[in-house]
Amino acid sequence: MKTQVAIVGAGPAGLLLSHLLRLQGIDSVVVETRSREYCENRIRAGVLEQGTVDTLVESGLGARMQREGLVHHGIELLFERRRHRIDMTHLTGGRSITVYSQHEVVRDLIAAAIDHEQPVLFDVANVLLHDIRSDQPYVELVHRGERIRIDCDYIAGCDGFHGVSRASIPADVLRTYERVYPYAWLGILADATPSADELVYAHHERGFALFSMRSPSVTRLYLQCRPDENLAEWSDGRIWAELHTRFENDEGWTPNEGSITQKSVTPMRSFVAEPMQYGRLFLAGDAAHIVPPTGAKGMNLAVADVRTLSRALAARYRDGRVDLLEGYSTTCLERVWRAEHFSYFMTNMLHPSPDETSFVNRLKMSELKYVTTSNAAAQSLAENYVGLPFAEAG
Amino acid sequence: MKTQVAIVGAGPAGLLLSHLLRLQGIDSVVVETRSREYCENRIRAGVLEQGTVDTLVESGLGARMQREGLVHHGIELLFERRRHRIDMTHLTGGRSITVYSQHEVVRDLIAAAIDHEQPVLFDVANVLLHDIRSDQPYVELVHRGERIRIDCDYIAGCDGFHGVSRASIPADVLRTYERVYPYAWLGILADATPSADELVYAHHERGFALFSMRSPSVTRLYLQCRPDENLAEWSDGRIWAELHTRFENDEGWTPNEGSITQKSVTPMRSFVAEPMQYGRLFLAGDAAHIVPPTGAKGMNLAVADVRTLSRALAARYRDGRVDLLEGYSTTCLERVWRAEHFSYFMTNMLHPSPDETSFVNRLKMSELKYVTTSNAAAQSLAENYVGLPFAEAG
Repeated sequence: MKTQVAIVGAGPAGLLLSHLLRLQGIDSVVVETRSREYCENRIRAGVLEQGTVDTLVESGLGARMQREGLVHHGIELLFERRRHRIDMTHLTGGRSITVYSQHEVVRDLIAAAIDHEQPVLFDVANVLLHDIRSDQPYVELVHRGERIRIDCDYIAGCDGFHGVSRASIPADVLRTYERVYPYAWLGILADATPSADELVYAHHERGFALFSMRSPSVTRLYLQCRPDENLAEWSDGRIWAELHTRFENDEGWTPNEGSITQKSVTPMRSFVAEPMQYGRLFLAGDAAHIVPPTGAKGMNLAVADVRTLSRALAARYRDGRVDLLEGYSTTCLERVWRAEHFSYFMTNMLHPSPDETSFVNRLKMSELKYVTTSNAAAQSLAENYVGLPFAEAG
Repeated sequence: MKTQVAIVGAGPAGLLLSHLLRLQGIDSVVVETRSREYCENRIRAGVLEQGTVDTLVESGLGARMQREGLVHHGIELLFERRRHRIDMTHLTGGRSITVYSQHEVVRDLIAAAIDHEQPVLFDVANVLLHDIRSDQPYVELVHRGERIRIDCDYIAGCDGFHGVSRASIPADVLRTYERVYPYAWLGILADATPSADELVYAHHERGFALFSMRSPSVTRLYLQCRPDENLAEWSDGRIWAELHTRFENDEGWTPNEGSITQKSVTPMRSFVAEPMQYGRLFLAGDAAHIVPPTGAKGMNLAVADVRTLSRALAARYRDGRVDLLEGYSTTCLERVWRAEHFSYFMTNMLHPSPDETSFVNRLKMSELKYVTTSNAAAQSLAENYVGLPFAEAG
């Protein structure tokens, strides 16, 4: 098999890249070790930045998102029993976020690929990247019991933190940066009407809690917990009681209860690998960087990466320019580090930590008061949350 | 001896409090274990917030400061060989800072006390606070070989971190919060014309450096060093070489050299004691809280404390109201924690630390780029640096 760009991974990064390349007349093949069903139902992020929404709409993928997605103009920070609203749209000159699940984006992307007969191979095994430093790299894999070789000009590594792509770069070439947080999130999905229109981030002495939603009938809730938290110890009753405690406030607002349809524990990690490219291999999304979920940046960074990569590849194929490709890692990393810093800031501010001194924990309270009383500080939070503008090189 | 308010400590906090009380017709006596000469020559901070300047001017202490002080409208952040200006005045709607040494403020305050025959006892010993929970507290001390007792209504503890005042509050009443940083500042005074008009804060991989000035002919410089740094290892030549390295930039700017007239190592500490009052004793300034010098907040917090305390005492004596006195600690601590957070933020952002992971050190670079490119972030830094408005209770 032969293509221009071999894309490893059918998450939002790989599928969107394939879509954006097709719009530029560039051929690609996507390969994925998981099944289509798995990809379409994997529960992940749900908050789209303004720029992510714009990218999806501009590339013709916005129809269902615009119908079903929930546009939010603010978030709330709850501490010391009071809710404080950050009016993002007002603070950023009209930008907003859209709540629309990552797996819905993936479904839309897969539907578009099928519509356009864009090849996506699911359930592949033994993926290997070869000759990535040459100008004739290729990907080998097993599909339906058959060994396949995909010859290509470029490889996009969109296969996540545990994928083969980053592992294909020699260890002495990569610099990695990491922080593992001393807490995790216990997340639930509940069949319950969301009791508020916007996300509520709560800082409570017993730990952080987040109120969110996936749709007008599904509430998404999180509780800060230990990384080794045992889900078996969390009955539905205990979860609701803990949520009501952490969201306590003088107005009496609290999440609606409902049948819990999913429980999971999400570890919290920050990670960056540099550079994001090596020879003909370009990493995008979780393959290159991980953020804790507090800033809602994971999928948005993946979209920004592949937007940059698709433009660089278009410049290469259309004009013969390689400078954008050569600058890919540098361009992406500016945004990546900004998002890493914002995610770290939000995470630290909102989570009381047994790992830190009481001095540092008291600073968090001062910071919460500050971002909810200073216009400049609120604006800074808001512009990061809705997403800073893309740096469009070229 | 009898007075209304006994003030322990003749630093800026104690002397200014005495001055502000006199303007309200309230008697006080200041006692100080050091000599007048020591107090007038102790080299400390040199950056006055807008509100500190306003307080001094409004209380008739501004004449020499307005003549000799250097009004600054911005600061510079230097990193990756480039200088980035934060235009504080523009960002804060017209506010600025004034460079005028703390010991000059102290000289002005002592001169004013002498002018108005305001009693200040220097060189006292064995200071003890008694019956601070009663409504007849008193201070005992030895002055010129004689045992003196000062009966009073209230005691102001303005005697610094190591003073007797905070130590007079039972340990089980006080909550203390502390962070000791894994680095210190090696500071020098040099007889050299300042080569720039504004302060330059430099983040360099070898460590932080700060360019500052005390007057048009005296440059003040600092280098991040180890807390146990041995000054004997720092020849003048080594100091200048290290300064030139850390300030390296593409424009070729560097501090002017000159004769070094003082060298010292300043440890970096954050500290807060709560509450700032106990019975008839009220703590102000370093007696209650310490900030690392990076945010230039130390003396400014002391001024804010005594401004609050003088107003509370005036309300008590003039109107018989005790609510402001009762709320003194709460009112002050809001500003104290804001300044603690800002000082911590500036300190962490500007000092590469062997104590932290390379991930956290990389975040600092992203934060520096952010505060020098985002208007909101620059505004947030600026409004804290020039000083947030006073919360005037009452």
